[in-house]
Amino acid sequence: MKKLMDVTLGENVLIYDFTNLYGCDIGDNTKVGAFVEIQKGSRVGKNCKISSHSFICEGVFIEDGVFIGHGVMFTNDKYPKSCTNDGQLAKQSDWTLLKTYIKKGASIGSGSTILPGITIGENAVVGAGSVVTKSVEANTTVYGNPAT
Amino acid sequence: MKKLMDVTLGENVLIYDFTNLYGCDIGDNTKVGAFVEIQKGSRVGKNCKISSHSFICEGVFIEDGVFIGHGVMFTNDKYPKSCTNDGQLAKQSDWTLLKTYIKKGASIGSGSTILPGITIGENAVVGAGSVVTKSVEANTTVYGNPAT
Amino acid sequence: MKKLMDVTLGENVLIYDFTNLYGCDIGDNTKVGAFVEIQKGSRVGKNCKISSHSFICEGVFIEDGVFIGHGVMFTNDKYPKSCTNDGQLAKQSDWTLLKTYIKKGASIGSGSTILPGITIGENAVVGAGSVVTKSVEANTTVYGNPAT
Repeated sequence: MKKLMDVTLGENVLIYDFTNLYGCDIGDNTKVGAFVEIQKGSRVGKNCKISSHSFICEGVFIEDGVFIGHGVMFTNDKYPKSCTNDGQLAKQSDWTLLKTYIKKGASIGSGSTILPGITIGENAVVGAGSVVTKSVEANTTVYGNPAT
Repeated sequence: MKKLMDVTLGENVLIYDFTNLYGCDIGDNTKVGAFVEIQKGSRVGKNCKISSHSFICEGVFIEDGVFIGHGVMFTNDKYPKSCTNDGQLAKQSDWTLLKTYIKKGASIGSGSTILPGITIGENAVVGAGSVVTKSVEANTTVYGNPAT
Repeated sequence: MKKLMDVTLGENVLIYDFTNLYGCDIGDNTKVGAFVEIQKGSRVGKNCKISSHSFICEGVFIEDGVFIGHGVMFTNDKYPKSCTNDGQLAKQSDWTLLKTYIKKGASIGSGSTILPGITIGENAVVGAGSVVTKSVEANTTVYGNPAT
């Protein structure tokens, strides 16, 4: 009851049921909870916990030892649209992918939303329920909407 | 690994795995991501993207070309309760359904919650992580909790 | 298409598909929506509605007649980390479980995040999209981030 397509897994990776992973790279000992989707073109390091109900999109790079809480939504497009101005379905070439970096040992609280194109520093902490709109310095704690 | 009951689908609709749709109407070319539930008595137009982890409830009417981000929660009841005051399980007749309208070309950012009984105007944009408590004018951008 | 392990169910419990429940206790007549995870060491009372996309973790105790909206995230650890300071994967003994109590007849709006170690009082209401950081008195309504 899990769906893995073209996924590169390290050793001792634990992936729960009801998960949808494709084209991504997951490091040793990392755990991925139920109802998680991880898209192509993303990377999760070693010794991470990706908790249930979270979404990790293309262009998100998560280093080792990171905690991602439950229901955390990453993004990679600042102006997402379903269609272009002339009413055609938007294609990959119609938008700009913004990359997001989560550095070693960071912790992102449950229910947070992470705007695209930012870096969350080493051992930084994002409190639960936050909306992170800009980069977070290493070893600092932010929370709120917007997170400060 | 998807569950579709009494669903009316247009042409070229793409529905991912781990989805639960019932009694709803989905227009041509629309894509529905993993871990999405769409309830009876709702409608999604043509050329829409309904991203993973979102919940579209009864009474939500989404026009053509709308983008719904990941983990967006719609609502249809201002005062949801499990039981009535005398301790009985609430029935359909114990509450009032408030309808929500998402107009053509609107974009709702990931991680947003949409309060019931509002209209989000044509080409309006709701920033990621917002809580939308009142109607949004066409061609405007709102964000925050509450979104303004 | 549901996964139930070591679950104690009352009478007339209704559990939708795409659910992951283990080591928990669910009372009579309670309904559990799609894409819900309920962990070991938690309890849900009678006549509750646990709506789709919600996460109920260890140490959460929900009394009778409670409404939990869609996409509600509970937590049980104030300082979640994937690894300890010396880079080892965190074990159960490396953190302190904080218990959360949701009293009879309370209603938690969709898209809310509940910080750990608090009590939400009898018939209290938490508005949709809230981040609840401290206990809520009985018969009161709170909302916002942080909820007040």
